[in-house]
Amino acid sequence: MRIAIVGAGALGLYYGAMLQRSGLDVCFLLRRDYQAITTGGLQVRSVNGDFYLAQIKAFRTPQEIGVADLVIVGLKTFSNAQMGELMRPLIGKETAILTLQNGLGNEELLAESFGPERVLGGIAFLCSNRGEPGVVCHLGEGRIRLGEFGAGLTPRSEKLAAMFRDAGVPCEAVADLRRARWEKLVWNIPFNGLSALLGQDVTELLTGGHTRELVRELMLEVIAGANAQGLSNEIDGPIFSKQMITLTDQMDHYRPSMQIDREEGRPLELDAIFAIPLQRAVAAGVTMPRVDMLYRLLAGGEKISC
Amino acid sequence: MRIAIVGAGALGLYYGAMLQRSGLDVCFLLRRDYQAITTGGLQVRSVNGDFYLAQIKAFRTPQEIGVADLVIVGLKTFSNAQMGELMRPLIGKETAILTLQNGLGNEELLAESFGPERVLGGIAFLCSNRGEPGVVCHLGEGRIRLGEFGAGLTPRSEKLAAMFRDAGVPCEAVADLRRARWEKLVWNIPFNGLSALLGQDVTELLTGGHTRELVRELMLEVIAGANAQGLSNEIDGPIFSKQMITLTDQMDHYRPSMQIDREEGRPLELDAIFAIPLQRAVAAGVTMPRVDMLYRLLAGGEKISC
Repeated sequence: MRIAIVGAGALGLYYGAMLQRSGLDVCFLLRRDYQAITTGGLQVRSVNGDFYLAQIKAFRTPQEIGVADLVIVGLKTFSNAQMGELMRPLIGKETAILTLQNGLGNEELLAESFGPERVLGGIAFLCSNRGEPGVVCHLGEGRIRLGEFGAGLTPRSEKLAAMFRDAGVPCEAVADLRRARWEKLVWNIPFNGLSALLGQDVTELLTGGHTRELVRELMLEVIAGANAQGLSNEIDGPIFSKQMITLTDQMDHYRPSMQIDREEGRPLELDAIFAIPLQRAVAAGVTMPRVDMLYRLLAGGEKISC
Repeated sequence: MRIAIVGAGALGLYYGAMLQRSGLDVCFLLRRDYQAITTGGLQVRSVNGDFYLAQIKAFRTPQEIGVADLVIVGLKTFSNAQMGELMRPLIGKETAILTLQNGLGNEELLAESFGPERVLGGIAFLCSNRGEPGVVCHLGEGRIRLGEFGAGLTPRSEKLAAMFRDAGVPCEAVADLRRARWEKLVWNIPFNGLSALLGQDVTELLTGGHTRELVRELMLEVIAGANAQGLSNEIDGPIFSKQMITLTDQMDHYRPSMQIDREEGRPLELDAIFAIPLQRAVAAGVTMPRVDMLYRLLAGGEKISC
């Protein structure tokens, strides 16, 4: 099986490296790290033990890679406009696509371009970032929940989950991908949003005294939005929000990706994490007023910083 | 009549200078500007024409000033804990106190320390800032609306308004000081809050595309909170919010005081402009959810920046 990694940032590099180390044939589409990796290989600094891959199949264009059996998408969603062009050369008759991107709308975009039957989505619970070119740092977690875009559990989704597990990545196939996506939004919306807006990590947000309760209120709004989507079964607001906060209390000054994006002057993933979820909630008759305000505060700041 | 100015920042220096220029006996309690003003006088750079006062009665302590007939308070509200100590030496049997501070709670604090019968409040619509020591810049506006804390229109409030007008400061005495305070909050809460949070001036907030509607929503919440206070007559939400936005559309990149406070690393006037109005609204049975969220975002940021 030939795997292509598109969007080889911290997430793409880490999962690609894990899959290659397990013996799979992995091709990386690279920009920033191309030179460093072709000359010096890829160094993975991981909480589970560092490792080094001397030989990496690195490419600058998708045409050089050609058709793959599986394309794993790790692009930042603010680059989704380039996705069609970047991926078309990789797609053959049997190619499956797994997007590990954040938020909502990514599967739909891929389905529109390449057909819904190819598309799977995954939610990555990964703390990682890029070091100098040629280095990726795995700070914690790494679990993936993946599922079919247009179906429940399938042999294909089970097989992909097993492939990740064989590579040392905890992974489960889920029957309801939309529920899994919304569950992740329950964390992403408050923590990505508030951390980017206030420049505070999750520990500061939860211990500062003024934002902990706001985190909970935002979570409850997202859960109400989620439960209006006709999920396979509802998310329990009080229980699930409490679990998410307890889980985050145990993270030691973790900086969400959106905080890092803002600090490093990159665009924010506002469409996938805010705008599309807000649209879907409104379409289902649910308003999320605090989420909406947080979105507009972030988008307002975004506008000016450009 | 002997007037003492306590809290001689941009506001206190400007109004004190105008009153002295009109022939009144004005004493300034100074810190930062004491040296510059005692040696070089006070320079006022005003959109209405610059002027210079060579002789200023400048003092370092209230004891040196002694009892005054009128004390004008221009302290930032985050210094209110020092107010009693700063003012006690100035208060005699007949002394009146006029606070021109922002937000709610200032008259109550003065009333508690010095008796309600002395206290008047005023809302200053003034664009001013301090230049180098010895210089105050008047950028625009300057109008004051003042009224009694514990009564409607009185000969005293009318006389004070006339005193300001005689000094070239547009001023009217109002019968309902609380209504005037809440009306000002309709502007202060969205514009001070959002400008400090996002680092954007009023023009950026109104033209950025994401925050203009949020300004209006915040205004409508404040108006609902105001109208629950049993004011002499209600504020019309749609009309008054539209007037405030139209007025602000005409300001050219004006930076609200709270934005400047944050940029210069000072504390923010969160109690007077947010916490106390939120308490009063809740006490009257009205929630202001967006105002509450904005407050917690500002307070959350405040906590960390200290």
